[in-house]
Order: sequence, then C-alpha cells, then structure tokens
Amino acid sequence: MTTNLGTTKIVRFDEFGDADVLKLEEEPISELAGNEVRIRIEAMSLNRADALFRSNKYVIQPTFPRSRIGTDAAGVIVAVGNDVKVLEVGDRVIAGLGFDMSKYGTHGETAILPAEFVHRYPDFLTPAEAASINNPFVTAWGALIDQGEMNEGDHVVITAASSSVGVAAIQLARAVGAIPIAVTRSGKKRHALLDAGAAHVVVTENVDLGERVREITGGNGARLVFDAVGGKTLEALDGIAGNRSIVFLYGAFDLGSPPVPMIPAITKEIRIWGYMVYSVHNSPERLKRAFGYIYDTMRTKGMRPVIDKVFPLSEYAEAHRYLESNEQVGRVVVTV
Amino acid sequence: MTTNLGTTKIVRFDEFGDADVLKLEEEPISELAGNEVRIRIEAMSLNRADALFRSNKYVIQPTFPRSRIGTDAAGVIVAVGNDVKVLEVGDRVIAGLGFDMSKYGTHGETAILPAEFVHRYPDFLTPAEAASINNPFVTAWGALIDQGEMNEGDHVVITAASSSVGVAAIQLARAVGAIPIAVTRSGKKRHALLDAGAAHVVVTENVDLGERVREITGGNGARLVFDAVGGKTLEALDGIAGNRSIVFLYGAFDLGSPPVPMIPAITKEIRIWGYMVYSVHNSPERLKRAFGYIYDTMRTKGMRPVIDKVFPLSEYAEAHRYLESNEQVGRVVVTV
Repeated sequence: MTTNLGTTKIVRFDEFGDADVLKLEEEPISELAGNEVRIRIEAMSLNRADALFRSNKYVIQPTFPRSRIGTDAAGVIVAVGNDVKVLEVGDRVIAGLGFDMSKYGTHGETAILPAEFVHRYPDFLTPAEAASINNPFVTAWGALIDQGEMNEGDHVVITAASSSVGVAAIQLARAVGAIPIAVTRSGKKRHALLDAGAAHVVVTENVDLGERVREITGGNGARLVFDAVGGKTLEALDGIAGNRSIVFLYGAFDLGSPPVPMIPAITKEIRIWGYMVYSVHNSPERLKRAFGYIYDTMRTKGMRPVIDKVFPLSEYAEAHRYLESNEQVGRVVVTV
Repeated sequence: MTTNLGTTKIVRFDEFGDADVLKLEEEPISELAGNEVRIRIEAMSLNRADALFRSNKYVIQPTFPRSRIGTDAAGVIVAVGNDVKVLEVGDRVIAGLGFDMSKYGTHGETAILPAEFVHRYPDFLTPAEAASINNPFVTAWGALIDQGEMNEGDHVVITAASSSVGVAAIQLARAVGAIPIAVTRSGKKRHALLDAGAAHVVVTENVDLGERVREITGGNGARLVFDAVGGKTLEALDGIAGNRSIVFLYGAFDLGSPPVPMIPAITKEIRIWGYMVYSVHNSPERLKRAFGYIYDTMRTKGMRPVIDKVFPLSEYAEAHRYLESNEQVGRVVVTV
C-alpha cells in the first residue's frame, strides 16, 4: 500500500561542480523507516563542508544521481517512525552532525533523519538562530570549553576568525571573560570582528602574527589557540603560544605537512591537539553537555549566533556562492 | 675566620670541547652558604645534557674558568648550612634537576647544592642505582604516567629506546602492563632492549617505522608515543599514533621545524605535547609523587635502573667518551 503524502521541494545535485549543480526539485514526499523522523524545515545554515561535499573535496562522497545536501537545519517534526520514542510531532528541532551524508541531507522544504541525530531546541531561539548553532558553537565548545577549560583572563588566539566557527569562538571567549584575539587576512572584516566581541583583531596582511600576539600578550603568548589554518599558524608558534598552551587544530587550509618549530614546542611544553567536532557528536554525553552549556549561555548572557545574510530557499545556490566568496562574517542562512 | 676543611677532587673544565677538556682537580673544600649542603659523592651518572653543556650545545652556559659539571649523583650528606631544616648529616641523598648549572655541579668527590635540590633515597638502592634514577625515570614518569596515564594493554612507542630515558620508559611500561615498542636505529641493540623489557623492537634501518607499528598494533596505532627524535617520528605519525593518542616530544635530534602531517593529526585527534622534565622538578608536589611512584614500583616489582657500564672517577673523561659513542643501552655511571 502506498500513501500519497504530497510533494516537497528538495535541494538535489547530480554531479560535482560549482553552485550551478544545485537544483531545487519538486518531488513526492517519501515514507519513513521506523527510526526516522520527518522535519518541515524552516531554516538551514551552510557549512564549509556542504560546499566541499558538492565539489568532490570532502571525505564523504554523495550518492548520485539526485544526492541530497546539507547538515545544519531547524524545523518542526511532522511525522515520526514507529520505533521513535523520544521525539513527537510538533517538536521544534535541529539536525545534529554525524549522520551519513551519502544517504541523508537536510536542505530543502523537508528532511528525513534518523531520530538520534535530531535534537529539540529552546523556545527563545528563532529557527534561523537555531539552525546556526550546531556546527559553530559545538565545534568551539568542544575545543575551548570542554577540552581547553577556557577561563576568565585567558588570551585566546582565533584564526579564520570571520568563519562562523571563529565567530562562535569569539563569543564563547567573551562569555567566560577570556580575551579573544581574532586573526584575519584582510582589514575588511576588522569592524565586524570587533562587533562580534574580538578584543583585538590581527590582520595578517599588515602585521606579523607572532610578533603582534607576543605584543598583545605582554610577551607571554596565548593560553589557547583555536586554529583552522595549519601551516601559517604553526610557523608563528613561538610568538602566539604561551607556556603549556594548547593549540587546537580543527581544520587546515594546508592539509599537507606544515613545519612545526620544535624548540618552542618542547621548551614551552606546548600541546598541539588535533580536534574534530565529530568527537563531540559521537558521544551523547558530551553533546548533551555541549547543548546545555551553549543554550544556558544564550539564555543568561544574551549570546546569539551572528548571522551575516539570509537567503530564501529559491536562492539556495546563490547562498553557496556567497559562502564561497568568503565575504561573510558569521553564518549564511537560508529560510523556507 | 677561614677553616681548613681539607681537599677534594672535582671535575672541572676551562673551555668548550670534547671530553679532553675535562680535568680532575685536587682543591680545597669550600664553605657552605646557609641554604646549602655538602655531599660526599659515591656515584654519578651521565646525562646527554652534561656532554652538551661541555661542548657549548646546551641552553645553559658554564661559568669559566674552572666550571663544574654534572647533575645526577648520589652520596651522603657531610655538612649542612645553618638554614637547612629538612636534611641532616648522614642522609643518603641524590641530586635533583633544576639547579643553576652555571653555578653548581655534582661530579667529583664532593658536591655542594642548595638543599631544595637534594632528596633522600630508599635504603634498598645502591649509590650507583640511586644516581641513575632521577633523569631517566622522572622524565619517563612525568610524560607517560603522570600526563599520559599509561595503563595495562596500552601500546607505547618509545624512540631512542636505548637511551637511559628510553630504557626507563620501557621499564615503567612493563610495570603497568603496557606494551612497549622500542624504536632503535640499528639491530645491534635489539637483544639488550628485549632484555630491558621491550615487547617489540623496531629497527629503523631495516623497516618502515609507521608500517611496522601499524602492523604490531593491528592497524590501530599506539596510544602513547614517547619521542626524543622529532622529524623522523612525526613523519611516521599516521602509522604510529592511534585515535586520541598522545605524542610526547621530550627531545628532538631535529631541533628545526620538522613537518607534521595534518590529516592524521586532525582526523585522529592526535595530541602532540611538548614536554620537559623540568616541569616536574619545578613542582615540589609533582616531584614528590614522581619519586613516590618510582620507588614504590622498584620496591614492589623489583624494577631497577639498567646500568650499562661503570667507570672509576679517575676515568671520568672516558665515561663521557663512552656516552658519546652511543654504544650503551641504559646508564653510564661513574663511582668514587
């Protein structure tokens, strides 16, 4: 027996390429498996991983033809599979990371996900805000708060600071009374980064990163470095990283083998930690603490995701183009 | 008023150079400052740092002419300064690290040290054993036990395994039921390393380090890497280091900026930690725990320092030459 569930618009792509490969297709709504829920999507946000997935630069491969795309999204549950216990129709939810991107995607008018990757969010957040929390704030929390124990007065160097993860790191640093030092390539984003809460903005096309951070920290270097860059940051290690500091590597523009200066690493007992947000998402206990901390901080301190620009679903491909222009500071959002 | 305290033989050097610069000089015994103790030395052991200090390759400079030399040593207290409270004449003691090497040295028939760098040792150890404990075992303890929480079943890769620190790391690994994988350049030391407790010996002139460790660990890599080498080890990072492993860098033959492969570092969340034994010696609390753990393990499990060769004080320069030949497995000791 087949039920006619109506139709929905879904973002699909059939081949690797630039944003032009993305199509919004009207299609029949499909049935749920027992462990799945169907979400009416209200807002989505774009991750760098979405663009990499689309252009064959990601660790996970799409299933062609008609691959879905997208991770971060917020919406309302409209149907639950027979085996789903903890979620109900009407719940306002966001999608978590870690589901199989070759099989599931969230961008479109509706999405189907296994229930374990779906989480309720608090009422005080709008769908656009809720869709913008997961990857940026959980990533920054897992490194800086959970592993790095960031505290009042800590200097924290944040590279690729205008990315949504960088901006979330700036905001979490401010929330605990730490001193975020935002690192960005050009001066264009200085004001936006100061607005987001950066105590200092280091523009690397103008000044030497290591020298400038050394100066800001009174010669001591920072206690935490939150780095998405790799080589260029490690080159400046002696200037930016203090005694017993932790340098989180959570991304790397330079995915090769950049040189790491041994003398400061050893004499200052610097700790260089590889880090992936999936280690938080793979642990229900850590993910629960992450959301608890983030929502509490939002509730008590007024912290909110920085949303750079909002596109309608009809301009979804344009949103990808804007993400890849690197003009933004914070999150690129698409609403239905 | 000057008291004639008699004479003593002290190792001195007046210029940088090879072991030939070391002279055993008969000289008057000098007075103590209030915070100092005088030790009649019974045994000394050689650290790589002693040879580097002698040849102008160390971070600390000697005071010429007539610089003293030496850190690790064991003996009996023969006099205490007026302000010394916790040590007494007759105490069997060893010298700790961290004193000012430009001012103090322990190698010779007697040594003067500030009391804070002098520690009693248990009766069941001989002076030669006691003199061989400090740098090797405290160094290995601080990384593997205290920070690395090495445990039963852990694979532990130990490079420069035939150094006295490497051998102590093998012994501590065995004591907790971990699986020490000794890494050495040539096959000559294989048997001695197996005798010291290595579960596996990887000879890097014969096999690829990363491939061999991958094989030994069933593809998982080790949980701990204790590395004195730098570049060559980091090159093999993907093979040797498992998920969420810790790679301690406590020395580096390659003191430049060796390349670190980013993809395994990030995707396996590897932690690369610079480490210096001084961080243990600079914390009285950590040092007390270190000695407590090491002596307990020796008492209950029969662990003892591996002493490769013992020289008389008259052949002190020869002991340096032997250290620098890299023929030894374990400690080079000089007795009075």
